[in-house]
Order: sequence, then C-alpha cells, then structure tokens
Amino acid sequence: MSKLAAPFSFQVRIYVEDTDAGGIVFYANYLKYMERARTEFLRSLGFSKPALFDSLQFVVRSIELLYQKPAVLDDVLDISASLIRLSKVSFEMKQNVCRGSDILVQAKVKIACISNATKRPQAMPKEIYHTLKELPLLTSELT
Amino acid sequence: MSKLAAPFSFQVRIYVEDTDAGGIVFYANYLKYMERARTEFLRSLGFSKPALFDSLQFVVRSIELLYQKPAVLDDVLDISASLIRLSKVSFEMKQNVCRGSDILVQAKVKIACISNATKRPQAMPKEIYHTLKELPLLTSELT
Amino acid sequence: MSKLAAPFSFQVRIYVEDTDAGGIVFYANYLKYMERARTEFLRSLGFSKPALFDSLQFVVRSIELLYQKPAVLDDVLDISASLIRLSKVSFEMKQNVCRGSDILVQAKVKIACISNATKRPQAMPKEIYHTLKELPLLTSELT
Amino acid sequence: MSKLAAPFSFQVRIYVEDTDAGGIVFYANYLKYMERARTEFLRSLGFSKPALFDSLQFVVRSIELLYQKPAVLDDVLDISASLIRLSKVSFEMKQNVCRGSDILVQAKVKIACISNATKRPQAMPKEIYHTLKELPLLTSELT
Repeated sequence: MSKLAAPFSFQVRIYVEDTDAGGIVFYANYLKYMERARTEFLRSLGFSKPALFDSLQFVVRSIELLYQKPAVLDDVLDISASLIRLSKVSFEMKQNVCRGSDILVQAKVKIACISNATKRPQAMPKEIYHTLKELPLLTSELT
Repeated sequence: MSKLAAPFSFQVRIYVEDTDAGGIVFYANYLKYMERARTEFLRSLGFSKPALFDSLQFVVRSIELLYQKPAVLDDVLDISASLIRLSKVSFEMKQNVCRGSDILVQAKVKIACISNATKRPQAMPKEIYHTLKELPLLTSELT
Repeated sequence: MSKLAAPFSFQVRIYVEDTDAGGIVFYANYLKYMERARTEFLRSLGFSKPALFDSLQFVVRSIELLYQKPAVLDDVLDISASLIRLSKVSFEMKQNVCRGSDILVQAKVKIACISNATKRPQAMPKEIYHTLKELPLLTSELT
Repeated sequence: MSKLAAPFSFQVRIYVEDTDAGGIVFYANYLKYMERARTEFLRSLGFSKPALFDSLQFVVRSIELLYQKPAVLDDVLDISASLIRLSKVSFEMKQNVCRGSDILVQAKVKIACISNATKRPQAMPKEIYHTLKELPLLTSELT
C-alpha cells in the first residue's frame, strides 16, 4: 500500500511589505513564508509552536536556497513543506515556493531541537518524533 | 433605512517573524497588518493593488497609533478597516487590532492619491471614489 | 546660561531591505530607524538596552507620524531624538527623519516603563530618570 | 608578491527589530546584514547600487547558510564579504557573520547580473568585472 501523498502546502499572499525597489519580493522574505508553512505543517499534525518553548525549541541549522523566478505584488503563492530526513534530534524539509505550476524558489531547511537551558541538541518530544516518523519521506533534491 | 454595517475585518496569524526579544509582536509590524487589511478591504470592493500603480498610487500621509495590549506568538488577530473621512484626493481609515473582544492597538491612517509622474496629489480614480462614497462613514475616535 | 543644544542624531543608510515596490522606503520601516536612534540616544547617556530587560522594560505606548517626502535606496538619513516630556513612568520624544536639510518624516513617540512581572506601569530606574531630567525639553510640535 | 589581504568587513549593530521571541536574532535577518555588507563592499570598490538599476541589476541566485551560534540584542557583528568565484555574468561570495572571533553564521551567496528588460543573464558592466577580477579569490568552504 502506497504512502504517497500530496505534500503539505500553505498559501501566502504578497503585500507591499514583501516587495523591494526591484519591484519583486525581497529574497530574504521567502524564509518567512517557509517558516509560516512549517508552522502550519506542525499545527496540522497537532503541534502548535508556543507549546514548544517551555524547555526546548526548534532552531534552523542550515538552509539551501535556489531562486528561479521572482514573485511580485499581489501574487498568491503555495509554499510546500515535505519531510526528507528525520532523526531523534533533528529533521530536514524540502520546501518549494510555487505560483500555480511555476516553481519560483526551492529550499532545503534543516531544523534541530535544542534544550532552552543548555542550548545543546536534545531529543525532540516523543509525540512529535513518532508523528513525523509516520510521514512518507520525500527524496527529491534541489533541481 | 440604516447604513449601519459591520466594519471590514481581516484575520492575521502571528508567526515567529512578527515577534521580538520582548516576547511580543514588534510594534512596527502592526502597520503591516493594517496595510494587509486595507489591501483586502479595497480588493473586497473590486480594486486590487497592482492596477493602481500605472499612473498613480496611494501613499500613507499620516498615522496615529495607540498601543494598549501586546499580541504574542500564535495569536490570531482581527484587523478592522473602516472609512472615517473621504475627499477626492485622500481618505482616512480607523483600524483596530483585536484578539477576540480585546482591542490591542487602535490607529487612524490617512491615505492620499498621488500622481506617479509628478508625485503631487491627484484625484483618485472615479470608480474608487464613487465606491467609497457609498460606504457608511464611521465617526469613532481613538479611545 | 542656556540649556540649548543640538538634538541627538543618528545616521541610517537605506539598503534594498528597506524599500518597497513603489521604489521608496516602506513607511513602516521608519519606526525601526527611530527605535535605533532612541537606543543610541540612551546608549549615549550611558544606558544600554539589555540591562533594562531584567525586571522592567520600556514599551511604546503611542506614535504620531507625518510623512512628508519619501526616502529612496542608498539615501543617508539623520534620525533625531529629542525629549519633549518626562514623568517618572514615561517619556515622550520628538523624532525627525531628515535627508540633509529636508525633513522627510516627523514623529512623536511616547514610551512607558512597565514591570516585566505585572506588565503594569512602574517607575523607571532612578539613574535614567535623573539623567533624562537634566536634558533640555524640546517644545516643538509636528508641523 | 602576495595577493593576500584581509577580507572586506562591515559592522552591524543588533536592535530590537532584529530579534524574535526566542530572544535571539531572527535567522532570516542575517541575509539583510549580508546584503548590507555586499553593498558596502561594492561601494568600497567605487560602485553604488542605484547606478546599477538603469538597464540591469544584480539578483541573488542561490544561498547556502550554516547557523552555528545565535546573535542577541545589542551585539556588534562583523559581516565579511569575500569573492570566491567570478564569471562575466555572475559572481559568488563567501560571507561570515562574526562576534569577535566567534563565527556565528557562514554563507555562500551567488549573484547574477540580469537585464532589466529581458530578465535574462547579461554580462555585468566591464568596469565592475575588471575591478572584481583584480581581487584575490578566497577558496574556503563552509566548515
């Protein structure tokens, strides 16, 4: 039986705040949309962010970004979030920013769980690990 | 017959990007949410932003802001947008930021229409003026 | 003997991150430059921000903004910070954003001291109050 | 005779606007500091940004980011900008974000020159290419 499923996707509208004098979306802002999509991805699995801030937090460890086409004012973008790697202390996601069938930006984002007290890697909460472990792993690379 | 109507309102979710080291929403960011709400208010009347950028644009002339309570990570806020004054070259809106029945921030924002060529005040497009003129004017002040 | 003195001023360079698709500085961003100037104003008096976050913090209570001319990419702006009112729990500053002798934006910003524990108004640290009390009060209004 | 030289470096102060509810600098903001440093790097070579926007512009094509330690409120950071690859239509820079001798963030950023009319790759202005060609190429990788 297949584990295939459409990747999680979250819609973002582009407002004036998102653009720059080049007339396009300022490239750093895509990281915000990807964070919104990851947050909603976790929420869709039953985990909301504030709950995580008591003794540990998830932090971004590394990002690879490939910019292919620019988004502009008023665009509606789809931001995907697909798990591509999982360990007990970290996970990695592939995220695409699309306008319709056009891929504008591709990224891989590695997230680690750290202790708020020691700032050192710490096993993520079991219920999150087990929920993520049930998800199909995407194997695609930046293309 | 009454012209009374619920003010236009637009929902905003608070993500990590919106917060600061004080643990609350960075106060400048409320201006972004108010712009999003004004954009959606205009769109709900049939006007989308990019159409306006050809020969003229709407610019913010003045803002009054009253901060009453802070918003925090993960909050869902309602941003209202109510017309309180209208002339042929400008209009003014009252905007409240609410979390449920709590008013967190109140603002008055004055918007002027300027020519892209001369950067001087210019009559706004007739269809926008006439559409706005049909709306009830709110008379409330910052309280 | 006169208490007259040049107001505190802090220089800000405009980068791509500061601009929007209108080709000018996004209006919400001026609040960031004013905060930078207030922070440097306090630092110039011997007070740095982190020290303040232990049991109390300064929060923005209200802002009035008047936008007169836009700043553009690569501009170097002078952001002034002048005390116009002082009480034991709050103070108010007049801030101008200037490019050379041109005033681009004027603002009045009211700052209150609150307890981190109760979130209620609290007397600011004595050394800050007494230092601010030594400064000349500017009496100018938004013009 | 050695071409060895200290890499270009630009200083950035961290203000409240830069931080998030985790009490640290929001990770997307490092891209802003790196852009400021690249802008000042080009300015130090005699090229200022607005001059570039007439018929062509430089756009970010790809970024690799490695987050090692967080910056916090009030930090003074040094952002380096070193050329690691150069062609007629693009160049790549290595950029480190340091606090004193601590490396907080490392990045590689690829910049391409495109025509404003066609949005397609275009040879960068000769004077920029020849100036960059005189610089020593750094060969370091993200470590």
